[in-house]
Amino acid sequence: MFTFTEEQEMLRKVIREFVEAEVAPKAQEWDEANHCPVELFPMLGEMGIVGTFVPEEYGGAGLGFVERSICLEELARHSAGLAITVMAHQLCMGGILNFGSEEQKKKYLPDLATGKKIGSLSLTEATGGSNFMGQKSTGEYKDWQWVINGRKCFITNSHLADVDLWTVITGQNEKGKPIMTAFIIDKDTPGHTAGRTEHKLGLCSSNTGDVSCVNVKLSPQQMLSQEGDGPKIALSTIQEVGRAGMSAICLGILRGCLEESVKFSNERIIYGKPLNKLMNIQFTIAENKLDYESAKLLTYRAASMKDKGLLCACEFALAKYAGNEGAIRAAKRTIDMMGGYGVINEYPIGRFLRDTLAGSTAGGTSDILKVVIAAETLKR
Amino acid sequence: MFTFTEEQEMLRKVIREFVEAEVAPKAQEWDEANHCPVELFPMLGEMGIVGTFVPEEYGGAGLGFVERSICLEELARHSAGLAITVMAHQLCMGGILNFGSEEQKKKYLPDLATGKKIGSLSLTEATGGSNFMGQKSTGEYKDWQWVINGRKCFITNSHLADVDLWTVITGQNEKGKPIMTAFIIDKDTPGHTAGRTEHKLGLCSSNTGDVSCVNVKLSPQQMLSQEGDGPKIALSTIQEVGRAGMSAICLGILRGCLEESVKFSNERIIYGKPLNKLMNIQFTIAENKLDYESAKLLTYRAASMKDKGLLCACEFALAKYAGNEGAIRAAKRTIDMMGGYGVINEYPIGRFLRDTLAGSTAGGTSDILKVVIAAETLKR
Amino acid sequence: MFTFTEEQEMLRKVIREFVEAEVAPKAQEWDEANHCPVELFPMLGEMGIVGTFVPEEYGGAGLGFVERSICLEELARHSAGLAITVMAHQLCMGGILNFGSEEQKKKYLPDLATGKKIGSLSLTEATGGSNFMGQKSTGEYKDWQWVINGRKCFITNSHLADVDLWTVITGQNEKGKPIMTAFIIDKDTPGHTAGRTEHKLGLCSSNTGDVSCVNVKLSPQQMLSQEGDGPKIALSTIQEVGRAGMSAICLGILRGCLEESVKFSNERIIYGKPLNKLMNIQFTIAENKLDYESAKLLTYRAASMKDKGLLCACEFALAKYAGNEGAIRAAKRTIDMMGGYGVINEYPIGRFLRDTLAGSTAGGTSDILKVVIAAETLKR
Amino acid sequence: MFTFTEEQEMLRKVIREFVEAEVAPKAQEWDEANHCPVELFPMLGEMGIVGTFVPEEYGGAGLGFVERSICLEELARHSAGLAITVMAHQLCMGGILNFGSEEQKKKYLPDLATGKKIGSLSLTEATGGSNFMGQKSTGEYKDWQWVINGRKCFITNSHLADVDLWTVITGQNEKGKPIMTAFIIDKDTPGHTAGRTEHKLGLCSSNTGDVSCVNVKLSPQQMLSQEGDGPKIALSTIQEVGRAGMSAICLGILRGCLEESVKFSNERIIYGKPLNKLMNIQFTIAENKLDYESAKLLTYRAASMKDKGLLCACEFALAKYAGNEGAIRAAKRTIDMMGGYGVINEYPIGRFLRDTLAGSTAGGTSDILKVVIAAETLKR
Repeated sequence: MFTFTEEQEMLRKVIREFVEAEVAPKAQEWDEANHCPVELFPMLGEMGIVGTFVPEEYGGAGLGFVERSICLEELARHSAGLAITVMAHQLCMGGILNFGSEEQKKKYLPDLATGKKIGSLSLTEATGGSNFMGQKSTGEYKDWQWVINGRKCFITNSHLADVDLWTVITGQNEKGKPIMTAFIIDKDTPGHTAGRTEHKLGLCSSNTGDVSCVNVKLSPQQMLSQEGDGPKIALSTIQEVGRAGMSAICLGILRGCLEESVKFSNERIIYGKPLNKLMNIQFTIAENKLDYESAKLLTYRAASMKDKGLLCACEFALAKYAGNEGAIRAAKRTIDMMGGYGVINEYPIGRFLRDTLAGSTAGGTSDILKVVIAAETLKR
Repeated sequence: MFTFTEEQEMLRKVIREFVEAEVAPKAQEWDEANHCPVELFPMLGEMGIVGTFVPEEYGGAGLGFVERSICLEELARHSAGLAITVMAHQLCMGGILNFGSEEQKKKYLPDLATGKKIGSLSLTEATGGSNFMGQKSTGEYKDWQWVINGRKCFITNSHLADVDLWTVITGQNEKGKPIMTAFIIDKDTPGHTAGRTEHKLGLCSSNTGDVSCVNVKLSPQQMLSQEGDGPKIALSTIQEVGRAGMSAICLGILRGCLEESVKFSNERIIYGKPLNKLMNIQFTIAENKLDYESAKLLTYRAASMKDKGLLCACEFALAKYAGNEGAIRAAKRTIDMMGGYGVINEYPIGRFLRDTLAGSTAGGTSDILKVVIAAETLKR
Repeated sequence: MFTFTEEQEMLRKVIREFVEAEVAPKAQEWDEANHCPVELFPMLGEMGIVGTFVPEEYGGAGLGFVERSICLEELARHSAGLAITVMAHQLCMGGILNFGSEEQKKKYLPDLATGKKIGSLSLTEATGGSNFMGQKSTGEYKDWQWVINGRKCFITNSHLADVDLWTVITGQNEKGKPIMTAFIIDKDTPGHTAGRTEHKLGLCSSNTGDVSCVNVKLSPQQMLSQEGDGPKIALSTIQEVGRAGMSAICLGILRGCLEESVKFSNERIIYGKPLNKLMNIQFTIAENKLDYESAKLLTYRAASMKDKGLLCACEFALAKYAGNEGAIRAAKRTIDMMGGYGVINEYPIGRFLRDTLAGSTAGGTSDILKVVIAAETLKR
Repeated sequence: MFTFTEEQEMLRKVIREFVEAEVAPKAQEWDEANHCPVELFPMLGEMGIVGTFVPEEYGGAGLGFVERSICLEELARHSAGLAITVMAHQLCMGGILNFGSEEQKKKYLPDLATGKKIGSLSLTEATGGSNFMGQKSTGEYKDWQWVINGRKCFITNSHLADVDLWTVITGQNEKGKPIMTAFIIDKDTPGHTAGRTEHKLGLCSSNTGDVSCVNVKLSPQQMLSQEGDGPKIALSTIQEVGRAGMSAICLGILRGCLEESVKFSNERIIYGKPLNKLMNIQFTIAENKLDYESAKLLTYRAASMKDKGLLCACEFALAKYAGNEGAIRAAKRTIDMMGGYGVINEYPIGRFLRDTLAGSTAGGTSDILKVVIAAETLKR
């Protein structure tokens, strides 16, 4: 019960060393410069960090969600901005893998899984993420082509993605309800452009912005699955791939807070003694530890259920909710413990707080997650 | 990863049915009458609920701490008072099992493991539980007998126990430090008497009080392990057997809060609709659920580590801390949700709150547990 | 700014001495025996504690809500059960004072204001307190008399009141909406009887139960104000008299928690030093202090606005919400600080927690109060 | 009881209009550019916002701490960075006003009080703010001059101040304890230089950095009060002027959070209805309101006690503690309520959170304040 396999432990060790060498030293700089380090993607691809759950036949590592969570946790431990870039890229791969035709998988996945190309999933519009069916982008079939128009906003990887999944309204059913359909759009398709870039409180080393389509013409081969499958694709991708990924990212940030609090309280000398001799500092450490251990067990339980093919919507909602709120609490506690140092940018703890707040909406806000959890709990 | 065996699931099912039939309907009455239902002990013994972790050769069920946690969780789901009675009884058995001679095990364990006799562990004195080495009870060796004098307080099962483990000071070492030694005292030994009974905020269907020894004479065969082993016996029993048991009891209370909140919000109609349609009620359900799932994972992880012989002091401290505080929060939330009904004794939720508060000190208060957790965390 | 007058300080001093002498020593006994100490009412009446805000011409003290809050805070400091008995009695007086005819005031107020008789307000029915207009009790005008039928529940002073205000439905208006009307019922009116008594989590030295009317015949002189004025009377009495009173009662409980935490941490010696030398204990004291000072300022601000005739619905809602939640938090913290002693009935802190929880619904639950506060805040 | 005078209400109105016109539109830009808007100082001076509590004979407005709190609250409502710049400037003026000679007051105060010059107080060294007597800067009297050496860090207005108050060690007393003495240093004194600038999580439109003295030579007239008065000057200035100012600044940020939450929930339409129709959103509003009203009453009570010459150390500690923690909670709640918008820099709420966190240490962290509060509370 409750153990990682040796292979999983080994994977974690390898990723950790890589992250400590290549990511940790630069994470703060990327953040300050609003730089998304896509230059690392080929290396991440090679290590299997990007295509973790993509089968080997399509260029991936052929592993599961437990392994994916390990990779994202380790990345987010030092750079949640990089981690969410990978995560959003995986939304694109997840959509194609789970809903694409054999040709689409063969065409797109190998480059994405190896980090040669970058993906994105463009769902949200100005009406907001939770009012999902209210979106206004359209697709019209004319002259053997689909013509796409619309604007998406708050899209991660908006300006970086080579392959962009879109949902649009392609008509109405007999009851007058909108028919939503998904398409794969290549970056260089005429009319497809990235617009404004958001300046965010956190996750500043990730890229978020608008993407527009103005009379973008797509061949029918670019449709993902069938007409009307948009909601299914969107929801399953957000809930299963997105929420799972975010739970691991929050977990990584939370571990960052825990480890920074341990480090600071071990090293800082006050009145001639290490800070960690004070009982109230020990309480902070213990509370951070509880938040981390709870979120860890919830995250890997959900991931292992997913890998076994069990229903795990409630479990991932619990994991992301616990991880995100836990990280916010742990960051606050650690900033308090550090006194003035907690708010100086030489220490990463302020960034961790900004990052976890900025990640609150991705994969569902705490309020949305609570509604999901309650629905499952009231049922049983 | 993260699964119970089929046998464990079956065990839970059996205990649950028993508890729902025999315990649930009477739990509130016992509480109001301050009645500890020891009349159930023979039946609990037969079912293996009392001697869960005692080897079969000594009359026990020969199972592990995961199974013990299942039993205690299910008991505490409806009567934490009964559960803590069993738990305190197991402290006595644990002490004898882990530190007793073969003769002592053969003499005492079979009757205890089958619920024919009741046990207790008398450690705490008026100086308080955390100032452990400050205790004042004494044992003097005179005329080939140990003469025990002293008073213990806040002892669970004080007035019910047939077999009572004591720690006393039997001398000083060369550095002037007290030598603490443990003894097994039979109830009817002259001079051993129960004194005042405590009236408590909660756990009213358990028995707590004083026990005194006035010139109690014991043969050397009643010493548990060797002279000076008292601290080892006491600490290991409290921390490994006691804290583990309390984590499962808190978990059971917490599940009680969760299930009551689900039941009430499903059944209660307000303005023509079930209460559970209100979003803020759903938030309460989700928060209760998160508290329960976190505590559950922490509790069974620790228990399974214990069963594998791994170090798990920090893990049990996390589990009890999470379970106890989680139960307090969940009870408060559920009382709030229920409006006036939450504070009427026809509903068990007020009792759950009182019970978990009354169980806060057993196995370590949250403050003590945080110190334990921090010590482990700062080390790593 | 922010000061009590000398007269108010003197009043507080007098009441405090009385409460410390007559109430404090017996409060725990009353609680354990479920005894409501109505034998004190004549003395309370003489001191002006009962009829504080009733004009002198009707036998009262002729003071304001600031003074009433002082009296209730001091009573609740040691016995919230007695305080809520007085408060519920004042609901009856408030109704008659604000809505009664000159004859009704002359007939009823002098005996009530001097504590010779006890009053109650019977509003709530089985459908719950917040679904106010859903009540089912009826009044029918027949043979120059009103015939009242129905059952009220969760009524404070149900079995003790000599004068009982009721609301009943006396017909429908042209839109089919119920017409609600209030009546004054004397205890000995045939058909008016008290039924079951509730066993509560807290406030056990107050009396709560059912009251029934079966064909109770009242002369038209027993109607309070006019037909159809029931909602106005009920809402204004609950919100202005009830909520104001509950804010002072919660404040008194909260001060009890603060003072008990100070006392215990000053007196308790641990490892040879007073408990109050530990920084985390100091944190508890400071947090209790903040909760008390915030609630105090909010309570007396609202009361002084009421005395000036200003709108203060939002202010009283803030005061009761802060006081009630603050008292729950402070009680929890203090129980934690006290270790095992916190859950032993020799100390009052467990009672304080039970009392404030049991008082959560009176004058509006925290959820209801938040809705009231938000409505005012969103408007401005 | 509990009212502002008409003059105070008028003052608030004038400042509010000024702040809305001149500060609000640029606050976000200043933050992003790390620009401290000292160009506003002359105008602030003219309005009495800078020299509020300085007597008119020295060029100030001759008002009290209630008025000062009004000014700082209004500034901080839109720009806490500007507010803390003013507050730190007032530390310098407060030191000179309360401890300076008549000549020093005449020389320095008129330019400072009118905003022509900027002041600072340089206390903290690398050893941290709470280990106050451990500082290492020195002053040596040689050739009729004081020679100052040392480095101060985390100093607000480090690079902007024309007049800089320093504390240094000028010797040892007979018990070997350091003698601390304060000096007034003019910016252009040779050897006095500003060093590194801190990059902070928040308050980015204020300036924080190091200041060094290398053989700075001062005439004896630059000593503030007498040799050895350094601790008295430092503590009284930090605790009375600094903590009081920070309580008002936190209050202003908290009001910002409240008003932004009201605005957003009134304007945002979701599923066709304003957000404020959702009960959980109303809860957020009510909780923000309670935090604000509590902090407001605590802040202005303390300020009015100060103006009356009453002891108010505990009261200001309560006010700053409540305001700072309340602002953190209110910002978190509002970010949650706003979904994705809460973390986009177009909305100020993320800045409010960063600012209040960055202001946590100024005037004492919450932990320090709790120790202060407990000391006073345990005494009484």
